Amino acid sequence: MSKTIITISRQHGSGGRAIGEEVARRLGYEYLDEVLITEAAERTGLAKDYIKQKSEYSLSTSIFSYAFVSRDQRGYSIDDMLFNAQRDIINEAADKGPCVIVGRSADYILRNRPHCLNIFVHASHDFRAERLMKLFDLSRDEALKEMKTFDKKRAINYKYVTDRNWGEARNYGICLSSSFLGMDKCIDLICEAAK
Amino acid sequence: MSKTIITISRQHGSGGRAIGEEVARRLGYEYLDEVLITEAAERTGLAKDYIKQKSEYSLSTSIFSYAFVSRDQRGYSIDDMLFNAQRDIINEAADKGPCVIVGRSADYILRNRPHCLNIFVHASHDFRAERLMKLFDLSRDEALKEMKTFDKKRAINYKYVTDRNWGEARNYGICLSSSFLGMDKCIDLICEAAK
Repeated sequence: MSKTIITISRQHGSGGRAIGEEVARRLGYEYLDEVLITEAAERTGLAKDYIKQKSEYSLSTSIFSYAFVSRDQRGYSIDDMLFNAQRDIINEAADKGPCVIVGRSADYILRNRPHCLNIFVHASHDFRAERLMKLFDLSRDEALKEMKTFDKKRAINYKYVTDRNWGEARNYGICLSSSFLGMDKCIDLICEAAK
Repeated sequence: MSKTIITISRQHGSGGRAIGEEVARRLGYEYLDEVLITEAAERTGLAKDYIKQKSEYSLSTSIFSYAFVSRDQRGYSIDDMLFNAQRDIINEAADKGPCVIVGRSADYILRNRPHCLNIFVHASHDFRAERLMKLFDLSRDEALKEMKTFDKKRAINYKYVTDRNWGEARNYGICLSSSFLGMDKCIDLICEAAK
């Protein structure tokens, strides 16, 4: 049974996004990342930058902030509304046809679909720091700080949305180390697994 | 760079051992599992059954038992001696030539070797229970109980030996769900990754 939906979760700097783009290109699947933000902005009326910042990096980073955030009559916060909009968009995209979705807890949102292959990409500290330094012109300290912050927020967000631990092997069909295997090999293996 | 040493860690009942055997056969690598026990028995003078039970299921399951176990003049317990013997055997096997090693925290023991591909195989509760019921003629309750006990002991043992969390994606080059992908696909992917 070929896997027509591929979700990619990844450690910051591991190259998961680039791997996802290339997998989509090779398999002829639609690649969904930026388009999810545009669509969510249209549906919710929220600014794209706000969505980009919030959509996967942290809906609510602490119980304290969660408790005091403003809500509508049904008890939904803006972040809940944003999550619900993105959940609907991801489900609709998966209904439409073969696609690769990066981030946004899509693995959890699509968990009951048998054709959905969930991938987690991770890498060594050195590999990730080097990539971030090159890609965003950062110092090593800045890259390490960014990795720590982003991963922490992703983990908190994933736990909040799914009640699962981010990066635990059993939540994914395949987990790959891009630093150990190389990005090309990761792309090959995902394409092979999707067949 | 081809991976000439493959270690396989696995959830009980996931088929990791069978996958490892077939990978070794296809790649023409030596398969090491039972032979490690025989060799350790010869070097330590311990009974094979004792080694089988102890070698990966738990060196010391509690601080209490660890504190009161008998030791030699250097402070080593029988379990420490067994671990050291197996560590030496695994290192010697890896020096000798291409091999697949199942269990025994070999991923950690061989962590500094660049040609070593560490695999973790996991599977859904249903898949594992079904396999164990068929393989060992168990009832569903017996299979579920065995899974829980074995996994717990493996996790404790892995933590004790490595100070890492068992089943955390970042400790392995590749993690695979045998229930989602199927055992044949897992074998294909590991062979492809080893190239």
